[in-house]
Amino acid sequence: MEFISSLKAASGSRMVLLVLDGLGGLPHPETGLTELETARTPNLDALARDSACGLIHAVGPGITPGSGPAHMALFGYDPIRYEVGRGVLSALGVGMELGPDDLAARVNFCTVEDGVITDRRAGRISTEENARLCQKLSSIRLDGAEVTIRPEKEHRAALVLRGRGLSDRLSDTDPQKTGVPPLPCRPLAEGDEAAERTAALVNGYLEEAAKLLADEHPANMILTRGFAKKPDLPLMTDLYGIRAAAVATYPMYRAVARLVGMELVETGPTFAEQVEALAGAWERYDYFFVHYKYTDSRGEDGDFAAKVACIEEVDASLPRIVELNPDVLVVTGDHSTPALLKSHSWHPSPLLFHSRWERKDDVDSFGERACARGILGTFPAVELLPMMLACAQRLTKFGA
Amino acid sequence: MEFISSLKAASGSRMVLLVLDGLGGLPHPETGLTELETARTPNLDALARDSACGLIHAVGPGITPGSGPAHMALFGYDPIRYEVGRGVLSALGVGMELGPDDLAARVNFCTVEDGVITDRRAGRISTEENARLCQKLSSIRLDGAEVTIRPEKEHRAALVLRGRGLSDRLSDTDPQKTGVPPLPCRPLAEGDEAAERTAALVNGYLEEAAKLLADEHPANMILTRGFAKKPDLPLMTDLYGIRAAAVATYPMYRAVARLVGMELVETGPTFAEQVEALAGAWERYDYFFVHYKYTDSRGEDGDFAAKVACIEEVDASLPRIVELNPDVLVVTGDHSTPALLKSHSWHPSPLLFHSRWERKDDVDSFGERACARGILGTFPAVELLPMMLACAQRLTKFGA
Repeated sequence: MEFISSLKAASGSRMVLLVLDGLGGLPHPETGLTELETARTPNLDALARDSACGLIHAVGPGITPGSGPAHMALFGYDPIRYEVGRGVLSALGVGMELGPDDLAARVNFCTVEDGVITDRRAGRISTEENARLCQKLSSIRLDGAEVTIRPEKEHRAALVLRGRGLSDRLSDTDPQKTGVPPLPCRPLAEGDEAAERTAALVNGYLEEAAKLLADEHPANMILTRGFAKKPDLPLMTDLYGIRAAAVATYPMYRAVARLVGMELVETGPTFAEQVEALAGAWERYDYFFVHYKYTDSRGEDGDFAAKVACIEEVDASLPRIVELNPDVLVVTGDHSTPALLKSHSWHPSPLLFHSRWERKDDVDSFGERACARGILGTFPAVELLPMMLACAQRLTKFGA
Repeated sequence: MEFISSLKAASGSRMVLLVLDGLGGLPHPETGLTELETARTPNLDALARDSACGLIHAVGPGITPGSGPAHMALFGYDPIRYEVGRGVLSALGVGMELGPDDLAARVNFCTVEDGVITDRRAGRISTEENARLCQKLSSIRLDGAEVTIRPEKEHRAALVLRGRGLSDRLSDTDPQKTGVPPLPCRPLAEGDEAAERTAALVNGYLEEAAKLLADEHPANMILTRGFAKKPDLPLMTDLYGIRAAAVATYPMYRAVARLVGMELVETGPTFAEQVEALAGAWERYDYFFVHYKYTDSRGEDGDFAAKVACIEEVDASLPRIVELNPDVLVVTGDHSTPALLKSHSWHPSPLLFHSRWERKDDVDSFGERACARGILGTFPAVELLPMMLACAQRLTKFGA
């Protein structure tokens, strides 16, 4: 990253990275076609014919990434070296500022019956209901830390503790399954006194929360995970001398974009509105990260047909992006979310790379198998940004 | 590199690395075919059908390499760890010896009008004119260093300063563009006294040069770049126990070959003559580096058709190399030089690997897209030499 940074050069070029979250899939047992191969995507197919194609691994073969590391890799960061805790992404995503000592966690409202979790998302309560419950929880006071909880969308919230000597070396209280009780928060290692003190604070908070939510339904408890502090990382905007902007609707993606130095462009919730927001900001930035969430959401729901429809929705607005005539336009996913698995997966993401200065291949449609035959082959996502900068003519020659 | 070296084994086998400089290209807008895909290359195509094919990155995805690092990678050196300054390559290339304290720079004769550079290559003056001007500059004397300038080809020359405590931490005086004045030589960092003293010497030399060249046309000034000392590196000949030779016509490639321990084979200027020189030296060496320059030169000129013709010239002499029956024959580029870009580029280079002991694939012609489908995939150039040594049966098993 420092090496690439040493080669940076000025240019008036524009780059667009369009991420369809969880784009990659697995073949439907009846048709043998993935979600992307099933979708009617005349615009993506036409673009693929005029592009270089390939597949990218967010972290590595066999590794199922969370959205955090997957996006860090797309932005040119080694996702293992620059690990960003989920809590940090949640807190930044809802607009909370984080100091270097602040401790953040991701919160899910959940349903507990007879002591065991029956729904880890409390029936995906509305964002308004979430806000009301967060307001209720704001009455909790801790001895030794200032605590804030703020709603994200649906059942998600962010928790921040501000105090002295807080540790993020803490276990999750979310057991990631139903039928079991919420876990206590514990230090990750024995004898870590700061972590023990912090875990006690967290457990104290959770006890108070349980009391305050006891009469609520379905959201009568909270689960916490991803305790983390804000990492110290170089900004991609500084590293490569680019003005970068994110057109993203979901808090977490806005958070990771902010973390690497991007500014946020205001946008309406639909993809067509996102594309209009992109067009409106076109003159002000060099690099645009456009994030579409719903391919992942419908994949996690296990709804193959709905994920197909999401891909088609994006395809319909693609020509408006192409019209802007970016010097580099990349369409890919951060990771795969096959509807058959109902979860993120380790499968590499299909990618098309469209630029006047990139080679073309013989790929004639945008899909997993087609991209596997593309000229770019299968490569680590962290290599994408240098390729984009090269085609944007923003890197000078190395050596004589 | 040390690991590979630890596995070295003796063998009577012969390896040939044929480098077509700047071989890789970009598709012509009218035909959709690259220079290599356009060229009529029956012999390369036949060889590709009986080879394993792939693409290589000299330094990494998105990185445009200079010829120095690109060749270092082909010779098995990590091109970032073993960076060789341009000045060293220029000086060694014209046969100057460099001690560990000597400072070398690459020189361009240029044209300056009204204080600004109008041609960074002084109309590519003849080598004879260059020699005359270098003779004229030889009268310059510096207080504190012995200075030598020697002509390369056309507008290129090499400058060497010999003295005590010289520094190579100096900026270029070549601004790499026209319409601006030559830059002064400056220390790369503030407060570096050795660099400050050396920069003052260099600037003193350039002032004298400007006076001596004032009445010349078009070469009325010189630009310097790539100040460097000879790096301390292990020789590939020692590392792998091979006798290696270079059949190269251009000074810089002869220089990088000498730097890694190769001997130079005398050759005439045409490719057919290079191949005859190779045949003549066949019994004396184990590894041959054959370098063909003009694919790169015509690419840099932006002359698509001329680059195609160069590739066809090489193709015509290829059977004579195949007749020698090398145990390993690799044909590739050091980097790409697309005529459309008129410069080196970051695109990976097509490669064919011909050996009795290598797998074959279904590639039926030698081209960028065809090689992308090859069995070797896309890989870093630094991995090539171990693969060549393996197929030459010059590496033993690792572990029991």
